[in-house]
Amino acid sequence: MRTILGAVVLCAIFMCRGEALALQVLNLMPMPAKVQLGKGRLVIDPSFSVTITGHNEPRLGGAVELFLSQLRRQTGMPPIDMKVTDSPGAALTIQTASGTQKVQEVGGDESYRLEVTNSGAKLSAPTTLGAMRGLQTFLQLVETTGEGFAVPAISIVDSPRFPWRGLMIDVSRHFIPLDVLERNLDGMAAMKLNVFHWHLSDDQGFRVESKKFPKLHEMGSDGLYYTQDEVRELIAYARARGIRVVPEFDMPGHSTAWFVAYPELASGPGPYEIARKWGVFDSAMDPTREETYKFLDAFIGEMAGLFPDQFFHIGGDEVNGKQWDANPKIQEFRHAHGMKDNNDLQAYFNKRVQRIVSKHGKTMLGWDEILRPDLPNSIVIQSWRGPDSLAQAAKQGYRGLLSSGYYVDLMWSAERHYLTEPISGAAANLTTEEQKRILGGESCMWAEYVSPENIDSRIWPRTAAIAERLWSAQDVRDVNSMYQRLEKVSQRLEWLGLTHNSGYVPMLRRIVGRDDISSLKVLADVLEPVKDYTREETAPAPATSASPINRVVDAVRPESATARQFADSVDRLVEGGSRPGTEAQVRALLSRWRDNQLELQPLFEKSVLLREVAPISQNLSALGAAGLAALDYLDRGESAPAAWVSQQLAVVEQAKKPEAQLLLMITPSVAKLIQASVGQTVPPSSSSSSLPAK
Amino acid sequence: MRTILGAVVLCAIFMCRGEALALQVLNLMPMPAKVQLGKGRLVIDPSFSVTITGHNEPRLGGAVELFLSQLRRQTGMPPIDMKVTDSPGAALTIQTASGTQKVQEVGGDESYRLEVTNSGAKLSAPTTLGAMRGLQTFLQLVETTGEGFAVPAISIVDSPRFPWRGLMIDVSRHFIPLDVLERNLDGMAAMKLNVFHWHLSDDQGFRVESKKFPKLHEMGSDGLYYTQDEVRELIAYARARGIRVVPEFDMPGHSTAWFVAYPELASGPGPYEIARKWGVFDSAMDPTREETYKFLDAFIGEMAGLFPDQFFHIGGDEVNGKQWDANPKIQEFRHAHGMKDNNDLQAYFNKRVQRIVSKHGKTMLGWDEILRPDLPNSIVIQSWRGPDSLAQAAKQGYRGLLSSGYYVDLMWSAERHYLTEPISGAAANLTTEEQKRILGGESCMWAEYVSPENIDSRIWPRTAAIAERLWSAQDVRDVNSMYQRLEKVSQRLEWLGLTHNSGYVPMLRRIVGRDDISSLKVLADVLEPVKDYTREETAPAPATSASPINRVVDAVRPESATARQFADSVDRLVEGGSRPGTEAQVRALLSRWRDNQLELQPLFEKSVLLREVAPISQNLSALGAAGLAALDYLDRGESAPAAWVSQQLAVVEQAKKPEAQLLLMITPSVAKLIQASVGQTVPPSSSSSSLPAK
Repeated sequence: MRTILGAVVLCAIFMCRGEALALQVLNLMPMPAKVQLGKGRLVIDPSFSVTITGHNEPRLGGAVELFLSQLRRQTGMPPIDMKVTDSPGAALTIQTASGTQKVQEVGGDESYRLEVTNSGAKLSAPTTLGAMRGLQTFLQLVETTGEGFAVPAISIVDSPRFPWRGLMIDVSRHFIPLDVLERNLDGMAAMKLNVFHWHLSDDQGFRVESKKFPKLHEMGSDGLYYTQDEVRELIAYARARGIRVVPEFDMPGHSTAWFVAYPELASGPGPYEIARKWGVFDSAMDPTREETYKFLDAFIGEMAGLFPDQFFHIGGDEVNGKQWDANPKIQEFRHAHGMKDNNDLQAYFNKRVQRIVSKHGKTMLGWDEILRPDLPNSIVIQSWRGPDSLAQAAKQGYRGLLSSGYYVDLMWSAERHYLTEPISGAAANLTTEEQKRILGGESCMWAEYVSPENIDSRIWPRTAAIAERLWSAQDVRDVNSMYQRLEKVSQRLEWLGLTHNSGYVPMLRRIVGRDDISSLKVLADVLEPVKDYTREETAPAPATSASPINRVVDAVRPESATARQFADSVDRLVEGGSRPGTEAQVRALLSRWRDNQLELQPLFEKSVLLREVAPISQNLSALGAAGLAALDYLDRGESAPAAWVSQQLAVVEQAKKPEAQLLLMITPSVAKLIQASVGQTVPPSSSSSSLPAK
Repeated sequence: MRTILGAVVLCAIFMCRGEALALQVLNLMPMPAKVQLGKGRLVIDPSFSVTITGHNEPRLGGAVELFLSQLRRQTGMPPIDMKVTDSPGAALTIQTASGTQKVQEVGGDESYRLEVTNSGAKLSAPTTLGAMRGLQTFLQLVETTGEGFAVPAISIVDSPRFPWRGLMIDVSRHFIPLDVLERNLDGMAAMKLNVFHWHLSDDQGFRVESKKFPKLHEMGSDGLYYTQDEVRELIAYARARGIRVVPEFDMPGHSTAWFVAYPELASGPGPYEIARKWGVFDSAMDPTREETYKFLDAFIGEMAGLFPDQFFHIGGDEVNGKQWDANPKIQEFRHAHGMKDNNDLQAYFNKRVQRIVSKHGKTMLGWDEILRPDLPNSIVIQSWRGPDSLAQAAKQGYRGLLSSGYYVDLMWSAERHYLTEPISGAAANLTTEEQKRILGGESCMWAEYVSPENIDSRIWPRTAAIAERLWSAQDVRDVNSMYQRLEKVSQRLEWLGLTHNSGYVPMLRRIVGRDDISSLKVLADVLEPVKDYTREETAPAPATSASPINRVVDAVRPESATARQFADSVDRLVEGGSRPGTEAQVRALLSRWRDNQLELQPLFEKSVLLREVAPISQNLSALGAAGLAALDYLDRGESAPAAWVSQQLAVVEQAKKPEAQLLLMITPSVAKLIQASVGQTVPPSSSSSSLPAK
């Protein structure tokens, strides 16, 4: 019987109690299982101190030091303030019952209880892991108040819904330096995510130093790889934050980068080069040669020693089978072994690899494709296909993870990710026992279009919404509350060094080539990159890993907050419930958009990067004018003439088309205004619309 | 006969040539000795490559890799683009004649010549050091254009005016982590500064690991010190950027932190604690005990091994002599040796220390106070007193550095630092030989009020103006050109990871306690911290190294660009020469200021950090109203009534007073408007004004 409280509810409770903080909203994310606000607050000043009672271990001490350094950062206190102390009067007392395993396991106890009163705070947890999660909650509670920094009196009981809450980063298609990964681990810890899934090899690059097969990283990485020392550094960094690190080496497909050095592993004749383009390639490991398994045995053995986690991800996705079809020896092998197709062949490969992984003490994990009944139940399936595929696996006794619906490279809204529920569809009908096999999910950052400069903006803040889905109760799904808290959380994540907000303006400056970016920003603020795989499909020339990542589509946010807020205002205007000032705000925005083209146009000739958005700027201007005219009709109580309306709807149709791989996100709202001006109700969005469903 | 071209002149030349880039201004800083623009441009695309011809050494290769990574960052290219190549068709050819010394020396040749045409660029320099400087110039020339990124066709011949161009950072009063120092070294390299002066010990902290005397850092640093490995890392980082590292260990005063572990070094009885307050303390080393020199011999020997630079800074400033006066044994020693005062005693100490420094192969450097005729001419004087003191030293045969006028902690304008000329006052009358003894100068960042969060904003961009003073010709002193280029340079410095701009908004958010900071920003944009040492003098309670650095005074910029631009507009309005739109702009600003108080006021009760600026917000509002009324009189051609004027000037007087250690920088301009409204001419600013001279 857990009490689930959304931010709005919390706010209401608060007001009932007549506290001075009446308007304060608790910006907790992910929302804890049970929250009860008390009276008063604990002031956080330079004398703040922490005592560790009960069980202690270096990992807990380290977590407290990390906590204090973040608390100092949030409050602007110097490092000589806020200490760990042995004296009993500490502001925060931490009590844990036992230590953590040397290697963090799936399902390790992450629960905690946090009690804050006027006079002090107590955090208790069965293990260090729970204490880590509770410390993050404490940091989220710190607010600026009229009496200085403070945490409200509160009682929280919390534990996660799913034991596996991950973020996958593909470092093959674009190499992502260690410091960028580390700041993302900080973001993960803040959002209570506990698995970093490191997609380390693919057609475009092999990114780990191998001491047994050094040509793998030497020839397969353009010199862009992690040394084994760096891998150990990252694992320690993650462990200090309660995060497991699961390595993925994709096989037998997505493995071109291996073949640059070892063409004999492939099913077709070499030589091979590191792939520069995106997509599914023909090359695949030869599943028929014993030498392949000998190589993999030695390689997996080496990596099993480097990565302490129980799980080893073998990828296993997207083998098109063309090299297998084209190789007579492989076909001969297949027929000789009575395999009816290439799927059978891949299943054979997976079974062999599973035995190797198991021999080295690890549990195999792979994408949907690896699921075949002849593999043992110990393996785990990561689903890019969806909850139904996950449910099938669970029924067959396999554990699974959901990633379909959490691909942040597809540029969906936070809302759409947020409402993607692992226990839905066929999974909702599973038995309790079967449902338990659904371990959780992972936000996936595929790296076709990211660089160290913009990757944070693709991962954050949307991954925080996914983190809440995986931590909080199933019925925490108030989208307005989520967006309200997400905005605050997004700012807080920047204190950790993430650059999802701060990176925006410098990228716009580079595009414009001058300091004043105001007119580009007006446009960019209402743009989003095209969704799903449309960017690939609509590319004027095929992008490669050598293409600059400096276009408007690379700079704009995956989700336009301005367009979302504008849509809310227009809905209120059109459907009633409009507040004073709403129309004035809408008019101000429309006017700014209408006039923006005049300001932006002179800059087009000066920047080739800017020039490609000229048609969108024109559309924005036209939509601004159309929206204003529609409002005029509405205000005068006139019905807009049919000819005008059809003319304006043509403008809308034009504006719906992607340009420069960008979408103009205010288009549906302006369409609503136009349709409202003739008293029409708004039709459901047509299936031909290129705007994504939300 | 060097041709000095300011940005405006360059622009004019450009227009004469009728190029498409007519409006482009070259944003070079420091301005090179000789610049000649050509026709056309060199396009910078992913295929850009560099060839090294002539002499080569690893340091040059490293500099080219750094250059390429910065160029990729500026243009958004992935790391697999833009390579070093051996083939002859490279876009940039670098030719150096010889290598650099193992330890960089003062006066090492930094000259270079850069020729860019449509078809390629050639950088030639006698040494790697000159090539490093030329590569920075090349980076500054890269612009966004209608044909992509490009460098204009240009011919540059360049070399520095002074051989010693430094930045001092005090890491004792507040510890500054290594990564913050490293990003500042990147900023230094971009501005062609070549000496990092590391103020490593003071009353508030001893910041280097000593293996001979580990208690020094263990007891004297609160655990906040650099390991010797970290020191070596920083030195290598600096060397890779053509920067020398000069350590300073302040003695015999400013040394309380040493005495925590070694009270026997002091002249008064212990025990000692690490100082938390600021100022000049009584404690000083005992210059009469041989054990003092034995200790220093061992310590300086160790540090001479750690720091390869030729120079060793012993501080030597601000000994108040109180401990010496109070110690009968020390007085006895003084009399016995015929010393007439404590200055003689310090001179004795310095002479002993100089012999130790010299024994360990180093040249002694110290602040003004160390200058005494009985020290050898090899020592170098760093002057916090001014050019006259420097001139005196030069006449006596001593080399010197100017730092008076370059103390960035005093919150002066860039203009005031920029116009501080080392060869001025008595120094202007020195012979050429004597003038050569003035080696240059150093920007000094004393650290009473800085943290890792705001230190960049205290150093940059103003230190870039100092860098130009020290590199460029004496007659490069067009303040408008400097400000115009500084704005662009400031944005570019952020690509290097400096946070002087990006750190502002997060600090304001923390103060307000919410995401929307617009009304605080309107106010903060026209505020500056009080100047000189007024912050100490006006502190309501004495600040210490444990005080939070999170106030409005810690967040606002040392120089308000908004106020400076407003002052220009008002001057144009009042003195004539007003452009179309100027009055509208001035009115818009004044209205925003007048109305801002209404928006900000409700937030005061919610944030104690915000509340202290309530009176200034009130003053801003009153000034906004006064300015608008004055403009109304001016527009109507009426003379404002005397009673109104005196009332408004009372408002101005009120607004001139520092509040919360902040100054409202638009005050003098509004006073001008008020005075203009009665046809008065503007009187020279009164001596009672608390606003700084510019």
